Amino acid sequence: MADGGHPKLMLTRGGVALIRAALGPVTLFGRSVARAQAEVDAEIAAGIETPVPMDYSGGYTHERHKRNFFVMQKAGVLYQILGDDRYAIYVRDMLFQYEAMYRSLPLHPKTRSYARGKLFWQCLNDANWLVYASQAYDTIHDFLSADERERLEQHLFRPFADHISIANPRFFNRIHNHSTWGNAAVGMIGLVMDDDALVERALYGLSPDAFEFDPKARDDDGGFIFDQQGKAGFLANLDAPFSPDGYYTEGPYYQRYAMYPFLVFAQALHNSRPELGVFERRDGQLLKAVDALIQLSDANGDFFPLNDAQKGMSIFGRAGVTAVDIAFLAGGGNPQLLSLAEAQDQVLLDDAGIAVALALRDGAALPLLKRTVNLSDGGDGTEGGVAVLRAADEALTLVFKYSAQGLSHGHYDKLSFSLYERGDEVLQDYGLSRFVNIEQKGGGNYLPENASWAKQTIAHNTVTVNGASHFGGVYEVASQHHSELYVFDDSNAGVQVVSATDRHAYPDKLLHRTMALIEDTALAKPFVLDIMKVTGKQSSTLDLPFYFQGQILDTNFSYRAPDVLAPLGEENGYQHLFLEASGAPERPSSQFTWMHARKFYTLTTASLPEDTLHFVRIGANDPDFNLRREPGFLIRRAAAASSLFVNVIEPHGDYSPVTELATDARPGVAGITALHDDERHTVVGIDFGSGKRLVFAVANQDASASAQHTLQVSGEVLEWKGPFVLREVR
Amino acid sequence: MADGGHPKLMLTRGGVALIRAALGPVTLFGRSVARAQAEVDAEIAAGIETPVPMDYSGGYTHERHKRNFFVMQKAGVLYQILGDDRYAIYVRDMLFQYEAMYRSLPLHPKTRSYARGKLFWQCLNDANWLVYASQAYDTIHDFLSADERERLEQHLFRPFADHISIANPRFFNRIHNHSTWGNAAVGMIGLVMDDDALVERALYGLSPDAFEFDPKARDDDGGFIFDQQGKAGFLANLDAPFSPDGYYTEGPYYQRYAMYPFLVFAQALHNSRPELGVFERRDGQLLKAVDALIQLSDANGDFFPLNDAQKGMSIFGRAGVTAVDIAFLAGGGNPQLLSLAEAQDQVLLDDAGIAVALALRDGAALPLLKRTVNLSDGGDGTEGGVAVLRAADEALTLVFKYSAQGLSHGHYDKLSFSLYERGDEVLQDYGLSRFVNIEQKGGGNYLPENASWAKQTIAHNTVTVNGASHFGGVYEVASQHHSELYVFDDSNAGVQVVSATDRHAYPDKLLHRTMALIEDTALAKPFVLDIMKVTGKQSSTLDLPFYFQGQILDTNFSYRAPDVLAPLGEENGYQHLFLEASGAPERPSSQFTWMHARKFYTLTTASLPEDTLHFVRIGANDPDFNLRREPGFLIRRAAAASSLFVNVIEPHGDYSPVTELATDARPGVAGITALHDDERHTVVGIDFGSGKRLVFAVANQDASASAQHTLQVSGEVLEWKGPFVLREVR
Repeated sequence: MADGGHPKLMLTRGGVALIRAALGPVTLFGRSVARAQAEVDAEIAAGIETPVPMDYSGGYTHERHKRNFFVMQKAGVLYQILGDDRYAIYVRDMLFQYEAMYRSLPLHPKTRSYARGKLFWQCLNDANWLVYASQAYDTIHDFLSADERERLEQHLFRPFADHISIANPRFFNRIHNHSTWGNAAVGMIGLVMDDDALVERALYGLSPDAFEFDPKARDDDGGFIFDQQGKAGFLANLDAPFSPDGYYTEGPYYQRYAMYPFLVFAQALHNSRPELGVFERRDGQLLKAVDALIQLSDANGDFFPLNDAQKGMSIFGRAGVTAVDIAFLAGGGNPQLLSLAEAQDQVLLDDAGIAVALALRDGAALPLLKRTVNLSDGGDGTEGGVAVLRAADEALTLVFKYSAQGLSHGHYDKLSFSLYERGDEVLQDYGLSRFVNIEQKGGGNYLPENASWAKQTIAHNTVTVNGASHFGGVYEVASQHHSELYVFDDSNAGVQVVSATDRHAYPDKLLHRTMALIEDTALAKPFVLDIMKVTGKQSSTLDLPFYFQGQILDTNFSYRAPDVLAPLGEENGYQHLFLEASGAPERPSSQFTWMHARKFYTLTTASLPEDTLHFVRIGANDPDFNLRREPGFLIRRAAAASSLFVNVIEPHGDYSPVTELATDARPGVAGITALHDDERHTVVGIDFGSGKRLVFAVANQDASASAQHTLQVSGEVLEWKGPFVLREVR
Repeated sequence: MADGGHPKLMLTRGGVALIRAALGPVTLFGRSVARAQAEVDAEIAAGIETPVPMDYSGGYTHERHKRNFFVMQKAGVLYQILGDDRYAIYVRDMLFQYEAMYRSLPLHPKTRSYARGKLFWQCLNDANWLVYASQAYDTIHDFLSADERERLEQHLFRPFADHISIANPRFFNRIHNHSTWGNAAVGMIGLVMDDDALVERALYGLSPDAFEFDPKARDDDGGFIFDQQGKAGFLANLDAPFSPDGYYTEGPYYQRYAMYPFLVFAQALHNSRPELGVFERRDGQLLKAVDALIQLSDANGDFFPLNDAQKGMSIFGRAGVTAVDIAFLAGGGNPQLLSLAEAQDQVLLDDAGIAVALALRDGAALPLLKRTVNLSDGGDGTEGGVAVLRAADEALTLVFKYSAQGLSHGHYDKLSFSLYERGDEVLQDYGLSRFVNIEQKGGGNYLPENASWAKQTIAHNTVTVNGASHFGGVYEVASQHHSELYVFDDSNAGVQVVSATDRHAYPDKLLHRTMALIEDTALAKPFVLDIMKVTGKQSSTLDLPFYFQGQILDTNFSYRAPDVLAPLGEENGYQHLFLEASGAPERPSSQFTWMHARKFYTLTTASLPEDTLHFVRIGANDPDFNLRREPGFLIRRAAAASSLFVNVIEPHGDYSPVTELATDARPGVAGITALHDDERHTVVGIDFGSGKRLVFAVANQDASASAQHTLQVSGEVLEWKGPFVLREVR
C-alpha cells in the first residue's frame, strides 16, 4: 500500500524496498528486469524521437509513440529499482519533448475515428499513452523539481487528460472498453498529480449536463455510444460489462484488452484509495474476471475468438502477465496462478511482480487446472452466458455461446459453438476480419468483410434460417435479447451437458441446442453430441454449417464438385462462400471424415432424405483477399417448419508423417438415430461399430433435477430423473 | 565385426558384449532399450496375431503384419541384450506362426501391384518383412534347435526369398529402391543362413538368362522396369542411383526410404564380408549419401519434397536414426552426427547405437552445421544436380533443382526452386499427391492427381512454355535429359550463386536460371535474386508461378477477382488451378506482399507492360478433394520468343498476434530493373527504399573464373572478372 509518497500507482515505495532487497536471487524477477534493461538501454542509445503524428496504426509515427510510452514506463521502473539516474533523465527528457510538442499540437490529421486523439488517430491510443506515461511520471516525480512538475502538469498532463475526457465525451463517457482506458488514464494521472477532481472524473464520468448527451448516437462499429441510462466512469464500467462470474460481454479478446486499465487503475486505487475497496467490489468481481479470462483460453493459452477477436492473442501476452500478477497479489496468492506466471516467464516490475517472483522462488506453485466453467453474461448475470466443457487434460474442449450480443463487437451467432482438441481448432469460430496493426490491410482496422462475413450468422457453427442472420443482423434488435440457459451439468465427467434456448434470433423459431461432451469406453477419445432442435410454424430453409479445417478424407455419400465455383448466396455472409461440392444423404446417418493437424475427425449426422450436404469455402466476393480461404461443411434442410439436427463430432486417431502410420483413421461411431422427438422429449441413439449403443434423452420443457420422465422408445420403456440421461442399451 | 557366430548382422557378439557392459549408465541407449521393452512387452501381453492377408496399406492385415516385423526385430534384440528367454520365445513362436501360414499361402488377393507379395499386396512390403525378420532370426539363431532352424529355413525363409526374387524379377532385378529392399532382404537372410547362393543373388541380381528380360517393360508409375543394360543387384543399386556426391536421383524422400536397406545390409556385409569393402566403395559413397540426406532437410529436419515426396518426413524418423548411427560407426565417428543423434533422442539397439550412445556419454558431440551444398546427380555425377544455398543459421534456404528426371518418381520441373525461412516454407514445392497409408484416400497409394497435377511443370516454381509441361510430360523423353550446371559459387557468404541451363525441356527454348542468395546491410534479412532467361525463336506464352503460402496483404497493381472461379486451363495441371484474380502491371516493378506463419514476404518482379499477373489456387477439377487448396502467384508473358524474368523474393519482418505488433511489414526493395540483357550478359539493378542500388551482372556464355567482362550499363562502364558480380553503385 502507498504511503502517500511517490511512486504510488502499481509500484509503491514499499514494493521498491522489497524489490531492492530481493533483486539478486529471485531469478524470474531478475530476468524480467534484465530484459527491460536491455530494451530501455537500446532505446536510450538510439535517442528520443517524438515525430509529428501522421499515421494510422501500423504506420511509423503511431508505432513510434506507442513504443515510447512502453519504454518510458519501463525506464521509470528501472530508475526506481536500480537507482540509476540515467533512466530518470531519459523519462524526464522524453516527457519534456512531449510537453514541448503538445502545447501546440492540433488534432491528429487522420479523420477516421469518432474521437480523434492528438498523438494518435484515436483517443483510445492517446489514453493508452497516458496510462503508461502517468506511471512513468509517478516514478520520477520526486526526481523532478517542483517547477518541472508544474510545467509538465500544466502543459502536458492536464490538457492531455482534458482532451480525452471533456473534449471527447463520446469516448470518455461510455460503458465500453474504450472508456475504461480513458477513465484509467485520467484517474491515474489524477492520482499522481494528487488532483481529486481528475480522480472523481475518472471514477464517475462526466456529468450528463456537462456535454451534449445524445443517447441515440452510434460509434464506428454500429453500437450505441452512450449507456441508455447515462451511466459512465470507471466504477460503472467495472460493474456493467462483467457478469457476476467475471465474463466480459464483448468476449475474452476484448476482455484481455479491457482488463489492463481495469487492473492497473484498480491496483493504483487499492494503494491510494483503499476505502473504495475496488478489488472487493461485487464479491471480488475483478479477480473473478481474471479467472474467467484464464478459463476462456485453449490448451495453448490462446483466447477463444468469440465475437470480434483476432486469433493468436493469448494469456501469455502483456495483459495476461498483468492479470495474473495483480490477481495473485490482490487475490490472496492463488498458487495455481504461479504456474501460469512461470510459463509466462515474465513478471510485472512492481509490487505484484515481486510478490509472484518471491512465491515462485519459494516453490509455492501448483499446476494450473483448467476446468469446465459456465460463465453468465450481463451485469447481473441474467443475460445468457458462455459454457466451456472440458474433457480431462483439455483433450477436447467445447465452447458454447448462449450469451447476449456483446456490445458493438458482438457477432450474430446465438447457440453457436467451437471445438478444440488440446490447442488445435477442430471446428472453428472465424473470429474477426481484421489484421490488427498491419497497415496494408485497411490501415490495420476492421475490414468491410468483418461486417459482411465475420459477424454474420452463417459464418458460425449454428443454424441460419432462410438465409438471414439472427435478428436480421440488426444491432438494435440483437442488443435487446440474449439466449437462456436451460441446463448446465458438469457433475459427471463422463457426460457433461450444456443446453440453452433462444426465442428471439428468429421471430418464428425457438432454437434449443443441447450439447454433451461424452467420454465413453467405446472410443479412445471423448466426443461431442450436438442436438439442435428448431421449432416454428413457417416452412423454412435451415442451414447448419460446421467449419472444419484441413483435408476431406472420406464421406459415406457421393457428392459432385462443380467445374466453376460460384457464391452460395447473395447476402448475409452467403455471398462470401464458394460452393465447392454438393451431395445428398444415401443412408440414415451421413458421415464425413477429415484430417487436420495430423489427427482424424468424423462428423456423423442423422440425415433426412431431403437434406442436401454441401462443402463450402470462404473467399467469394472478397476482392482484396481479406478472408482466409478455409472450408466448411453445411447441412441444408429445406421446407422445414420445425426440425431436429443431431450430430456427433468425433475426434479419432492420428497420423505421423515420419512413421507414415495412421491409427484409428476410421470413426468408431457407426450411426446416430433420432429415436423420439416431440415437444417434451428428444431421444437419440448413438451406434458404435462395436455394436454398442448409447441412448441420450433430454426433457425439452422441464429442466428440474427431480422431474421423472417415462417414455416408450423403440418398444422399450425409458425412465429417468432430471433433465437428461445417457444410458447404454442392448 | 562378426566372428562368424550369431548374431552377425547389425548386432554382433562383440556389440552385445559392449552393450551389456555399458547398459546401466548410458542414458540414451538405456532409454531406447526401455522404450523398446515397453513396446514389446505390450505386444507379448496382447499375443501374437498373423491374420490372413487381405488389405492394402492402411488396412488391418497390412498394418498388423507390418507391426509384427518391427516388434519381432526388437524382441530379438532385447533377447540378446537382456538375456531374457521370453523375448526369444516370442520371436520363435511368431516365426513358426508365419512358417505354418506361409507353406500354403497364395498370392495376396489385392491385384494392383506389378509384383504381388504374399503377406502384403506388393513384394516391396514382403521384402520389408524379410529385412526385419532376418534380423530377428539372427538374434535367436542359437536359441533354436537345429531342427527348428531347418524347418524355418525350408518352409519360410527360402521360399520367401525365392518369391521376392526368382518369382518376381521385375521387382528384384531393377535399379530402383524397390529392388534394394529385395536385394537386402535376400542377402540378409542369406547371411544368417550362411547361404552363399542367396548372398550372391542379392549382391549381383538374377542373371538375365534366368528370366524373361524385357527392357521395355514399365512399372505402375510409368518408369522402365529394368536397367537398359541389365544391371541389377545390391552393388549395382549402390553404384547407380547415388551420385558421387551422395545424391539419390529420386530425391531425399525416397533416399531416406531406400537408405535403410542399403545401410543395414551394408553394415551386415561389413561385419560378415569385410573384403567387399562396401563402406569404402566409390570413395565412401554410402557415407556421403548420409551427409547428403542430412543436408537435404530444412531447419526442422524435414526433407525437401523434391519429386514424389510426402511432406513432414524427417531426419528424425526411423531411417534417419539408422543413417546417423551407422554413419557414425562406419564413418569414423563424425562428432556432428552426435548432436543429431541427441536430437533424435533414440539410437539403434545394435553396435552402431551403442557406439553413438557411448560417445554422447563422453561428451563428444559437436553442433551440427548445415551448409550450402551442391550435389551432382547421376551415377557418374554428370547429370545435373541439386544445390542448397543456405544463409547463416538457415535463416533462408534456397533449394534449386537442375537434376535428371529422378526415375519414375521424378517431376517435370527443370530449374525449379523452393524457399524456406528456417523451418517454414516460403515458396513451396507441392510434393506428391498421396496420403501414405491412409486407406480412405485411394488405399493410401498414389492418387490420380499425382500425375495430373503434382508431376506437372505448372505445379512448380519454374517456367512453363505454351501451357505444356517439360518434355511434353513424357517420361521416356525426360529420362534421357538433365539440366547442366553453369555456375555454383559459395565462396562469398554475402552472395552465393547457383546457375544452370536446360536445353531439352522445350525443343525451341534454352532456359537459363541464375539464383543468388544475398545478404546485404540494406536489409535485415537475406533475400533471393532470381533471373530466368528464356531464349528461343518461336513466339510463346511463358508462365512463371510462385507458390507462396498464407495471406495476400498488398500489391502495387490493381487486380480483379472474378465472381465465379473457373479453371485456368484444360490440361497439364492447369485444369487444377482456379483463377482467383487477375491484374496487369502498373509500374516497371510489380510488387506483391504476403504474410505467412507470422512473417512478411514480398515478391518484386520486373514487369513488361504486356504481362498479366494472376492469383491462382490449387483445387479445380479435384472431385475427391485430393489436393491442398493452396495459393500461387503467376506471371504470364504472352507472345515472347525470348524473354527475361527478374524477381526478388524478400522475407521481411514479423508479426506477433500477442503483442499485435508488426515490424518491417513493408519491403525494403523498391524495384528491380533489367539494365542490360543480350546473349552474352545480363545485368539487373536492385533498388532499395533507402536509395541504395545493387547491381548484379552475370555472363551468360562464359563461366570461367578468369574471364574479364566489360560492359556499358546505364552510361557507365561495368567491369568484372568471372561469371558474375554483385556491386553497389551510386
